[in-house]
Amino acid sequence: MRRTLLAAALAFGIILPAAAQDAATPPKRKTAQEIVDAAPASAWRDLDPANTLYMELPGGRVIIELAPGFAPEHVANIKTMAKGGFWDGLTIYRVQDNFVVQFGDAEGEEAGKAKPYPAGTKTHLPAEFTRSAKGVRFDKLPDVDGWAPEVGFADGMPAARDPKTGTLWMTHCYGIVGAGRNNAPDSSIAAELYVVIGQAPRALDHQLSLVGRVIKGMELLSVMPRGPAPMGFYEKPGQRAPIISIKLASDVPEVQRTPLQLLRTDSQAFIDATEARRNRVDDFYTQPAGHIDLCNVPLPVRETPKG
Amino acid sequence: MRRTLLAAALAFGIILPAAAQDAATPPKRKTAQEIVDAAPASAWRDLDPANTLYMELPGGRVIIELAPGFAPEHVANIKTMAKGGFWDGLTIYRVQDNFVVQFGDAEGEEAGKAKPYPAGTKTHLPAEFTRSAKGVRFDKLPDVDGWAPEVGFADGMPAARDPKTGTLWMTHCYGIVGAGRNNAPDSSIAAELYVVIGQAPRALDHQLSLVGRVIKGMELLSVMPRGPAPMGFYEKPGQRAPIISIKLASDVPEVQRTPLQLLRTDSQAFIDATEARRNRVDDFYTQPAGHIDLCNVPLPVRETPKG
Repeated sequence: MRRTLLAAALAFGIILPAAAQDAATPPKRKTAQEIVDAAPASAWRDLDPANTLYMELPGGRVIIELAPGFAPEHVANIKTMAKGGFWDGLTIYRVQDNFVVQFGDAEGEEAGKAKPYPAGTKTHLPAEFTRSAKGVRFDKLPDVDGWAPEVGFADGMPAARDPKTGTLWMTHCYGIVGAGRNNAPDSSIAAELYVVIGQAPRALDHQLSLVGRVIKGMELLSVMPRGPAPMGFYEKPGQRAPIISIKLASDVPEVQRTPLQLLRTDSQAFIDATEARRNRVDDFYTQPAGHIDLCNVPLPVRETPKG
Repeated sequence: MRRTLLAAALAFGIILPAAAQDAATPPKRKTAQEIVDAAPASAWRDLDPANTLYMELPGGRVIIELAPGFAPEHVANIKTMAKGGFWDGLTIYRVQDNFVVQFGDAEGEEAGKAKPYPAGTKTHLPAEFTRSAKGVRFDKLPDVDGWAPEVGFADGMPAARDPKTGTLWMTHCYGIVGAGRNNAPDSSIAAELYVVIGQAPRALDHQLSLVGRVIKGMELLSVMPRGPAPMGFYEKPGQRAPIISIKLASDVPEVQRTPLQLLRTDSQAFIDATEARRNRVDDFYTQPAGHIDLCNVPLPVRETPKG
């Protein structure tokens, strides 16, 4: 045994084809993946095209679910800008390793070069760092978190809640999309967006307006060449990666859409799958962690079943 | 103001050139970067060439500091294999998004195709998942951690400690290098190695033998094209990324070495820089996090000053 492919498969807990498993020692408990695969149709929700962005890159489509419950004004502005084609032909101009990919108008601050905003774009928005937790379903994890009193999920997004202040906010996990700003809290308009591509930079939580989450296509963003340290801005315009377009899915002909479903974070399958990851016991894992970090909880996505 | 480059600079807390700062509001406290820049020479340690791997890729050099204190047998085997040129001409054959890059002999489990191990390579090693904490300096963070009773740094590596069991182990942070294994805890020999490229998969802590940390060149690994889900193994041999060589720095002529220093994790500068990140207060951050996660603590590296 040369400890290569099989080793990796087992080391990272992916189910191997039956032939590769030892028939004498069937798994005692369902794995997270098995639980997700067996989830009933009711555990899945359809991705809403009116609330979804398609970012078309030369390498393929990045799909972002927007979070209007968390940042209604930013999301409304994003929809206006997408309808007006604001990002079409603009670029990804910053990639900082283990931090963020950032895109928008690289020349937005250069007089005479900035691309005009589409009609109806608001040039001032309120800060949308937190929202009221009142009346918002929050699927709380039992796990301790160093950054916030409570963590869990709301509107299908990773989130945190503070019972003392009664506020709720999205958290900077891998794949989260946020709006860059200046020093003034109300200085973002969502024209310049960033996507988290590394260890969750949660010190940024409730300091920026978060607008959504990449649910498909992260591997198109995460492989972008890193710009030079410390901040990852590409030095030459030619290094910037072109964005073909960013459109609302509902503005794309139906045949060109990517129908997806997301596992509801309030479903029993989601709760059970998370528990299977928190306390994983199998032939490989002898000591279950007994814990899971908010940003380590996968949020399953699948193609919408046919028929 | 179009909220582009400046927005990003401020949003992510990098010090701008003086001209871009508002002279009327000088920073009240030193930033983490300023503290690191002002650290005395005694706060830095030289990277030991005898304990350093140079992984030469077509795009450049990845530098790994080995962790013999944590995994002495694995590190000794790595040195034997590197001296024997084991990885020279082998490949990176697996890249799973938000998880790991894995390299070694992609055909190591195929009879007749596996590359022979160099003379002296041990084909069996003990599991080195934890070590005794006794007598090992541990620079403990005050921050709560969900995965371990205590977290901090030992031998310059991110680590966790359990006072009840008296054990210490390295943690799966971004850039950490580990040895893949089969189900048996003692089935790794460090021929097949992985590097963490996403959110810290700390459920793997004290389940695998960790052997070191990438201290320079992560951006060469993190941009590798992702293989297909779920595990990221490239489907075709031609997709594998070639490794020119992996050598011990001490086996490379001195003029070809990369002299580096690392900030000591027991230095006051390191403690102060970490505190500046934990409780960042400046024109951008109005609410300090009051917390830092072990895997969010940067471990500063610099070129060795001349002279």
